[in-house]
Amino acid sequence: MLALVAGRGGLPLALAETLGQAGRPFRVYALEGFAPDLPDVTLFRVEALGRLLRDMRKAGITEVCFAGAMQRPPVDMAKLHPLSLKLVPRLMKVIGQGDDRLLREVIAIFEEAGLAVRGAHDLAPELLADGPVTRAPTEAERTDARRGTEILTTLGPLDLGQGCVVAGGLCLGIETLQGTDAMLGFVAQSRAQLAKLPGVFVKRAKPGQDLRVDMPTIGPDTITAAAAAGLSGIALEAGAVLLLDRDEVTRRAEAAGIAVWTQP
Amino acid sequence: MLALVAGRGGLPLALAETLGQAGRPFRVYALEGFAPDLPDVTLFRVEALGRLLRDMRKAGITEVCFAGAMQRPPVDMAKLHPLSLKLVPRLMKVIGQGDDRLLREVIAIFEEAGLAVRGAHDLAPELLADGPVTRAPTEAERTDARRGTEILTTLGPLDLGQGCVVAGGLCLGIETLQGTDAMLGFVAQSRAQLAKLPGVFVKRAKPGQDLRVDMPTIGPDTITAAAAAGLSGIALEAGAVLLLDRDEVTRRAEAAGIAVWTQP
Repeated sequence: MLALVAGRGGLPLALAETLGQAGRPFRVYALEGFAPDLPDVTLFRVEALGRLLRDMRKAGITEVCFAGAMQRPPVDMAKLHPLSLKLVPRLMKVIGQGDDRLLREVIAIFEEAGLAVRGAHDLAPELLADGPVTRAPTEAERTDARRGTEILTTLGPLDLGQGCVVAGGLCLGIETLQGTDAMLGFVAQSRAQLAKLPGVFVKRAKPGQDLRVDMPTIGPDTITAAAAAGLSGIALEAGAVLLLDRDEVTRRAEAAGIAVWTQP
Repeated sequence: MLALVAGRGGLPLALAETLGQAGRPFRVYALEGFAPDLPDVTLFRVEALGRLLRDMRKAGITEVCFAGAMQRPPVDMAKLHPLSLKLVPRLMKVIGQGDDRLLREVIAIFEEAGLAVRGAHDLAPELLADGPVTRAPTEAERTDARRGTEILTTLGPLDLGQGCVVAGGLCLGIETLQGTDAMLGFVAQSRAQLAKLPGVFVKRAKPGQDLRVDMPTIGPDTITAAAAAGLSGIALEAGAVLLLDRDEVTRRAEAAGIAVWTQP
């Protein structure tokens, strides 16, 4: 049986729909306070992670897929479950070393418990962006996308940066912990007096990133935010970014004249 | 005679005051539309850059210092002065290759015209931050400052990033074309739900940057913006960042409990 450990956003919903259509059984688990809008969700607290692992095995879970945005929950040491005694300090140790480091530790804990961790792109490969989504980019848009790719691949070894905005060769935003929407909002607010060229949003996995967690994802709201930021293109890393609701993404991007394409 | 090519912000005013106190004569030039609040400013347009160079030589100018924020002015080719025919296309060619590339070209043009380009830190070394400004940083603040330095030195070769914000090891902002104030404003607005740790603003020159132009500068408003962003520390690269109005910087930083210090 598959466990979907679901966070916020469109990905868990899209994944649940895809799995349902494929007739594949699954159970949904979520961190208390971050439950998605899905039926029959089993809530857990990070302080009781050890008990969760035991309960999952008892319930016949063999595979786990993490999907959707999860913020770092507050940890109340007074609520620490005996089965978590070893685990929580292990997680606390890597907090502050970047998201990837923390998530790799979470994966390791699940796998040591005998649960196979699968990526969303593994379970629903049709969600992966690969090939053109709307019109082809102009040469200027390709040039901005190359510059954005250079910036992200340079930052990648620091476990930083899944996205950035480049307009006429000038960098107007680099994604930090606050995420894509916050960055596009910043560009929308602050670019008025600057680079008049439309600009491109570049979204990639970090080099070497484990795609089984924190997979780069865009959806219809990303298109709306990019349009509000005055951008004319969105360049996605081929085979590394999930596209939620492709029909609506296409409709909004075409209405806004935004080129959405994938690049190596 | 020294020419101060002045832009916006506190630096040209601080420099004019320092030069005046030292009894050193100078003339002030400014791009039309970006004039500082100083008396007797000679305005010029970038389309007439060639004529400006000729006029400067005629006026006995031998040294030039660029100081203050200058945005890229709109260029109206119809207003191109004959003496600028060779210069403006040369500048247009490097626009879009980053600020440093453009400013290096501007320096080269002035030097080829026989004018020595001097840095503000050269003319007023007392403005350079070097040594502690307020209280010593805590170990946590030092750790965040090291992470910020790692981020900026990694980005430097791309001609990007004079500043960033790190809180508890997590990056909350990286300076882009919009500048320091915009980035600190973004952090103030967007960090509410994230890293509860206070965090540090790190400001450095880009590695290998020509300090004669676009020198990193902080002043009293930077302290106010950092406090509004919930930060507790500001780490400056020793000998590479100008400190405007040190007394007021110190007063505001002490009032807000912010450590301001320099690091190699």
